Amino acid sequence: MIPGLKVASLAGGVGSARFLAGLVRVVEPESLTVVVNTGDDERLRGLHICPDIDTVLYHLSNLCDWDRGWGVAGETFSVNDHYRDLAIRAGDAIQEDRTGKEVDVHEWFALGDRDLATHLLRARFLDVGLSLTEATDRLRRAMGVECRVLPMSDTPVRTVLLTQSGEALDFQEYFVRRGQREEVARVSFVGAAEARVAPGATEAVASADLVVVPPSNPLISIAPILAVPALREAMAGAPGTRVAVSPIVGGRALKGPADRLLASMGHEVSALGVARMYRGLVDVFVIDERDAGLSGEIEALGMRTVVCDTIMRSAEDAARLAKTVLAEVRP
Amino acid sequence: MIPGLKVASLAGGVGSARFLAGLVRVVEPESLTVVVNTGDDERLRGLHICPDIDTVLYHLSNLCDWDRGWGVAGETFSVNDHYRDLAIRAGDAIQEDRTGKEVDVHEWFALGDRDLATHLLRARFLDVGLSLTEATDRLRRAMGVECRVLPMSDTPVRTVLLTQSGEALDFQEYFVRRGQREEVARVSFVGAAEARVAPGATEAVASADLVVVPPSNPLISIAPILAVPALREAMAGAPGTRVAVSPIVGGRALKGPADRLLASMGHEVSALGVARMYRGLVDVFVIDERDAGLSGEIEALGMRTVVCDTIMRSAEDAARLAKTVLAEVRP
Repeated sequence: MIPGLKVASLAGGVGSARFLAGLVRVVEPESLTVVVNTGDDERLRGLHICPDIDTVLYHLSNLCDWDRGWGVAGETFSVNDHYRDLAIRAGDAIQEDRTGKEVDVHEWFALGDRDLATHLLRARFLDVGLSLTEATDRLRRAMGVECRVLPMSDTPVRTVLLTQSGEALDFQEYFVRRGQREEVARVSFVGAAEARVAPGATEAVASADLVVVPPSNPLISIAPILAVPALREAMAGAPGTRVAVSPIVGGRALKGPADRLLASMGHEVSALGVARMYRGLVDVFVIDERDAGLSGEIEALGMRTVVCDTIMRSAEDAARLAKTVLAEVRP
Repeated sequence: MIPGLKVASLAGGVGSARFLAGLVRVVEPESLTVVVNTGDDERLRGLHICPDIDTVLYHLSNLCDWDRGWGVAGETFSVNDHYRDLAIRAGDAIQEDRTGKEVDVHEWFALGDRDLATHLLRARFLDVGLSLTEATDRLRRAMGVECRVLPMSDTPVRTVLLTQSGEALDFQEYFVRRGQREEVARVSFVGAAEARVAPGATEAVASADLVVVPPSNPLISIAPILAVPALREAMAGAPGTRVAVSPIVGGRALKGPADRLLASMGHEVSALGVARMYRGLVDVFVIDERDAGLSGEIEALGMRTVVCDTIMRSAEDAARLAKTVLAEVRP
């Protein structure tokens, strides 16, 4: 731990959350600011759901189910079960999807009881006029999370995946409901250009000694954050050491659909493919031992490379990876 | 059961819901329309809560806890417990209200898991743009309720109790949180004058052979409905037989704060006091055996009186009372 070291981190879903659970073990939590993707936020059952913020909070508060990656460990689903029964009887739940199978349009996204309590408290904060930044700050304090957690924006930004067949899907629909089967041609971030950045977010990036891009999907977890002009500029001009960790190991995503998305959008499915997307935005690129052979090509992009075991099976693994990242900070 | 008899009923909380649970046993449910008070609706945890509509639906679907009067029998409170823990840790339970006093704005109103499923499905319906009338209709079908249940208004009407010390309280705050201790000087119904009446509500009253005012609080359950001009006019001009049942028996309210409210607002706390409020709006007033002595004075107001046992200990009792009401219909 380097006393006084100021750290900022971008964050998307599970990969980021795991990394951060390790990072807070090796930096002073109060000197860490996390800026989280809100492009996958969604209205569900009248509530404002923030999948990435919650995944980060649940990991940082040790409430998470590490293996499953989302939600809370030991979760129960009382309300969800009642809701599903009622919705089905209301004729609400059944709708034809493209495969011709009858599916329930909402039940594919189950909300656990404890998770629902988070959503209800957020809903209440938003309802009385707090911003998403303020609501998030209250939630993270309630969960005992000591580092600052900011949404990337207080105004809605919507990640939209345009399929090769011309459909526009949001991430949860693509990821959860369609089982990532669609070929995606393009991803766009509606509202990013005019987004109202969370107060303190650009300043945190601009004043950090270390800015981290954890191993998350570059196209849908990190790209929406970088699509917000002020945040992209802050990242491009950040005077601290900027370190990204590759989410692609041995040509595959460890979690989620990053590999399929990269391929369908014409990117090379490798740490090199990801490094190309971060060109000009990071100084150091951390790759897995299995990808050591890509080191030369990545360094040719103008980044230093660090090779290590990047797999996070536990918070201890994540802390080890975070230490490796910390070691790259240039005084 | 009189085939083809068209019945309309106003409805507030528990007394109304109990009466209706009996009424549907003695009329054809599909020829009954219930118009429910929405003056106590409220935003809670980002959700739109309709206490009276839900009490009516839970009674008509036999989901209710008859003795407790509100909520669902065998209810669990998983989410509520998690919410409370989180809210307390968020420092949320304490907040400045408009009067500058620190109050716990939410924790006094517990939402059960099954009840919450109702609120979430309603929230979803409203969120996708359905009116409260449409949302209520879907919910009642989902619960297997065969009669038509309408909110009195699709636009917000807010029952506000002005205390003698000058405070403005909503009903849930007065009733649940303050334990009905305040002296109330006046009740007003904000938004009633310009309310958008639920489609079909005035027509149901105007075309019914029988219009019932069940034994509910005249000041805060029935008055808000009658404060909506179109509904008051429909009631005043209804050609069917209009029958009200007294919620005051032996000088006391059987349930709720009607007696205390009547007294603090200067009304006589008796069936006669209630009858005075309904003058010109009802043809028949049903009073309990214990109040038989008031018959003459009530008839002097221009109503017939019917004396019977009005206490509803069960749905069977309620059906018996409903039968007595039905017998008053003039062909």
